[in-house]
Amino acid sequence: MARLRIALAQVDLTVGDLDANAAVVRSWTGRAAEAGAQLVAFPEMTLTGYPIEDLAFRRSLLDANKRRLDTLAAASGDLPVVVGYLDRDAAGARNAVAVLHRGEVRARYFKHYLPNYGVFDEARYFAPGDRVVLLDVGGATVALAICEDLWQDGGTVAAAGAAGAELVVVVNGSPYERNKDDVRGALVKRRAAESGAVFAYVNTTGGQDELVFDGDSMVVAPDGTVLARADRYDDELLVVDVDLPSRPAASADGFAGGFAVDRVTLGPVPPFPETPVPQRIATPLSDEAEVYGAIVAGTRDYVRKNAFTSVVLALSGGIDSALVATIAVDALGASNVHTVAMPSAYSSQGSLDDAAELATRQGTRHVVVPIQPMVEAYHEALKPLGGLSGLSAENLQARVRGTLLMALSNEHGHLALTTGNKSEVATGFSTLYGDSAGGWAPIRDVPKSLVWALARWRNAEAARRGETPRIPEASITKPPSAELAPGQLDADRLPPYDVLDAILDAYVERDVDREELVAQGFDPAVVDRVIRLVDTAEFKRRQAPPGPKITARAFGRDRRLPITNRWVDTPTARGLPETVRPEGS
Amino acid sequence: MARLRIALAQVDLTVGDLDANAAVVRSWTGRAAEAGAQLVAFPEMTLTGYPIEDLAFRRSLLDANKRRLDTLAAASGDLPVVVGYLDRDAAGARNAVAVLHRGEVRARYFKHYLPNYGVFDEARYFAPGDRVVLLDVGGATVALAICEDLWQDGGTVAAAGAAGAELVVVVNGSPYERNKDDVRGALVKRRAAESGAVFAYVNTTGGQDELVFDGDSMVVAPDGTVLARADRYDDELLVVDVDLPSRPAASADGFAGGFAVDRVTLGPVPPFPETPVPQRIATPLSDEAEVYGAIVAGTRDYVRKNAFTSVVLALSGGIDSALVATIAVDALGASNVHTVAMPSAYSSQGSLDDAAELATRQGTRHVVVPIQPMVEAYHEALKPLGGLSGLSAENLQARVRGTLLMALSNEHGHLALTTGNKSEVATGFSTLYGDSAGGWAPIRDVPKSLVWALARWRNAEAARRGETPRIPEASITKPPSAELAPGQLDADRLPPYDVLDAILDAYVERDVDREELVAQGFDPAVVDRVIRLVDTAEFKRRQAPPGPKITARAFGRDRRLPITNRWVDTPTARGLPETVRPEGS
Repeated sequence: MARLRIALAQVDLTVGDLDANAAVVRSWTGRAAEAGAQLVAFPEMTLTGYPIEDLAFRRSLLDANKRRLDTLAAASGDLPVVVGYLDRDAAGARNAVAVLHRGEVRARYFKHYLPNYGVFDEARYFAPGDRVVLLDVGGATVALAICEDLWQDGGTVAAAGAAGAELVVVVNGSPYERNKDDVRGALVKRRAAESGAVFAYVNTTGGQDELVFDGDSMVVAPDGTVLARADRYDDELLVVDVDLPSRPAASADGFAGGFAVDRVTLGPVPPFPETPVPQRIATPLSDEAEVYGAIVAGTRDYVRKNAFTSVVLALSGGIDSALVATIAVDALGASNVHTVAMPSAYSSQGSLDDAAELATRQGTRHVVVPIQPMVEAYHEALKPLGGLSGLSAENLQARVRGTLLMALSNEHGHLALTTGNKSEVATGFSTLYGDSAGGWAPIRDVPKSLVWALARWRNAEAARRGETPRIPEASITKPPSAELAPGQLDADRLPPYDVLDAILDAYVERDVDREELVAQGFDPAVVDRVIRLVDTAEFKRRQAPPGPKITARAFGRDRRLPITNRWVDTPTARGLPETVRPEGS
Repeated sequence: MARLRIALAQVDLTVGDLDANAAVVRSWTGRAAEAGAQLVAFPEMTLTGYPIEDLAFRRSLLDANKRRLDTLAAASGDLPVVVGYLDRDAAGARNAVAVLHRGEVRARYFKHYLPNYGVFDEARYFAPGDRVVLLDVGGATVALAICEDLWQDGGTVAAAGAAGAELVVVVNGSPYERNKDDVRGALVKRRAAESGAVFAYVNTTGGQDELVFDGDSMVVAPDGTVLARADRYDDELLVVDVDLPSRPAASADGFAGGFAVDRVTLGPVPPFPETPVPQRIATPLSDEAEVYGAIVAGTRDYVRKNAFTSVVLALSGGIDSALVATIAVDALGASNVHTVAMPSAYSSQGSLDDAAELATRQGTRHVVVPIQPMVEAYHEALKPLGGLSGLSAENLQARVRGTLLMALSNEHGHLALTTGNKSEVATGFSTLYGDSAGGWAPIRDVPKSLVWALARWRNAEAARRGETPRIPEASITKPPSAELAPGQLDADRLPPYDVLDAILDAYVERDVDREELVAQGFDPAVVDRVIRLVDTAEFKRRQAPPGPKITARAFGRDRRLPITNRWVDTPTARGLPETVRPEGS
């Protein structure tokens, strides 16, 4: 039975920053060598970052990333390094990993299964690999796989198992969604059991636009035992001593499961160290901690990787902006969070007090700018044209706030955050260029029900640590209102949020149709209204800023619908709904 | 030698409006029958419209479209009808056509090649078909194909040719881009020559979000003779008498080129009429007429299919807004076009006069709203926070205009049009929520050089018809300026537009890299500056409204780049450019 010390480099990479990514490979390879590792593996597309989208078509980037790979290979020593990169050959671009050892690129593996669903478009970019790579590393038989190769049945992972792999190293760029750690853990266990090999799973961390990568790297034995598991979101070098099963060598004909097999025997690797590494199994997170962690990580990285250091957001006194401010403070520190209250004639004193109290508790840089003078100037200017009424006048207030927020953003270089939640984004319950104006939308994929849950959880966390709760209780408990007209409440225009969120979860995330929703007991009139709101708000979502994906189906590239669309999911209706544009357009 | 009268129904369909689309099939089938046709064919995905994007996952839409298909089949008579629809079986969803005849669905064909590049994501939705369909229609052997099947070598089109097809009916949803008619015509000729069969190509018309379908249906003989060709953009029933080549029957084993062959002999069809139809070959359009026609068609359909009847746009007196107003008037009629001039302290009298003159010439509903009172109110409100300077103050003016435009849009139910061109969209030379605020962007894919060319062409067209030129000459000839600061000119901030557009064409549409641009003789400093502007404006484009695609690569789903991206296409640079945010953010 072979033993191997492996190191999984769970690291944050930056799309397009080849030098920085190569530097990460160098420094973490050094750390792995110091830790006595005999093999170190980095995440999917290490050198370019992931996903690079249409940058995959840039010859200059391809060439530059190959040069970095060659440089790293030339510098490689006894410790084999598994590193992801972009390759291209006659068949097209390749989502590839290379094995660097003793000055050379000794092996290359191309991703076989190319995901082309959800947020993924890999059939657009890559040609599928059709070869299995089996490395002899100090007497152990090690196979390589990339992300989706693990998720689909058969393919190169099954073939590697059949060919006698004792260890399968899977490099990943696996984005977070709620409870994905459970699914992922079960999947790795299943593949290990199917193959009879140990599985080493290394994932990236950090944010890349809408995607947050949650780490969760792990090593699992064929009997399902989790030998090691890394933290979520944080960078970590997971060093693990693994006892590998002795498995019969594969047939000599060089084929397995229909795939050609490349066999590569590496030269000497470092000896197995004498002192064992302690076992590392990270504590699982609660559902709220997991979601909150994803949003904080995604927000921190979006700000940092786009070269901002500070943010500005509007505080209304309500729960959404309170939660976003708290996330921003946790991500960036209070001194980098600028908050502004922009009261109108309809803002309650309670709301203003709640906003001020939140700013005080968290230490944000807080200012107050009343909007009434601008609102009046517009009304005056438009009076000769008939003036503004109803929703138009409500939207105006939101747009004055949006303009002020962007002025502060432009003048002081803060990234503007929006505060809309998924229930609002879904129903179009927002004003374009008003409250939806900004560069990053931290909670756009968080349903309102979960907004409350996260706020309560964050306050409880503070209490657990003996700190003042971050969010004033009134912001959590008061009935939600946009405060754009006298006495206005969300409940006047939307169904209760528990009902709304249940319908949205079914309709948006799981394509449950209208008939089935009615069969489940929802009021048909409410179902019809919600579906119409969602369908007709597509034009607003197209102009919305990005935010971190935390659900199974976030709006955006996860859910691609035409704006021009007369399909209405009811048994009888057709054409556009009677209200063409929803509230607050 | 068999003869057949075929009818190609070049029609505009609406995504999701199944009843309306089915009604189009019924009425145009009736027209084809009256014209003596022996076969009528409709465009790709006739019943659902095209492309339906993630609506392909909706069970309710699938079921409803199948019911419409069955109803149409039940009503079918002697005239065989080739109609596109959405199917689904164990392998997945299918981009399908059915042959309806004498009360039944007699054959089904599934698209074999699924485009997954450019604007297309069909690998996300559909499973590829793997069978060839050969129909015996009154003694003639007719094969079916769908769009991409024609564009790729081999596949079911080549197999159908090898199996003895005498006529290949290709149904299409082929979006417009510049000069595509030339490429398309050459392609159909090549396939006809390769196969030895007559090719009948039917395309849809109208707009669907960013895509404009330009018709251009045609029938081509194996020797390359164009037997008939329909108009661009307009609906048309193209009725053609074709002499079909006698071709040897295929092998009897039911396979051709590796594909299984479904052979279906239809029952009696109408007799070949005694009176021949006159030949119809539409006159080709000039480059400018073609582009202008696409934008007008796309604009008309976006407005109409989204249930608007009128539009509102800002007139600056400059060329961009002048062209957009002219397009809107041509698309919707002057009485549906509302224009507003919003002068600031920096607006020249000439600009105001040019705007008024354009409104007068075209008969738009024109109003003037000076923005100074609002601008001053904002400055006053922000003074305690340090006030606004430079670009922030420029952006403020644009956002006041955006807010006024949206107020008029909301209050009066007009769709707001934006007036930015592709050169501006590319370089981020616009203000988010300011001049980029609106629901539809008619010229967002038109480079500035082409804006001038289209304006001159449209004026010349008017002159040719003895009408007053639509656009005042001063709007065309004066140096472009945003007029957001005293004496400001575009030329202060951007390279000359001929240089800029040449670089943009290469970098954006053809992935020409920096080194090659320099090798072509462009000033390296200018190239670097343009590339940086393009790269760092991605965040603005994500929040921009849609507009019609007219180039080979429009911004949007044609070109998918991360916002977070530190790749800089220069031999030495890395990381973010020194100017993180371009002008006018």
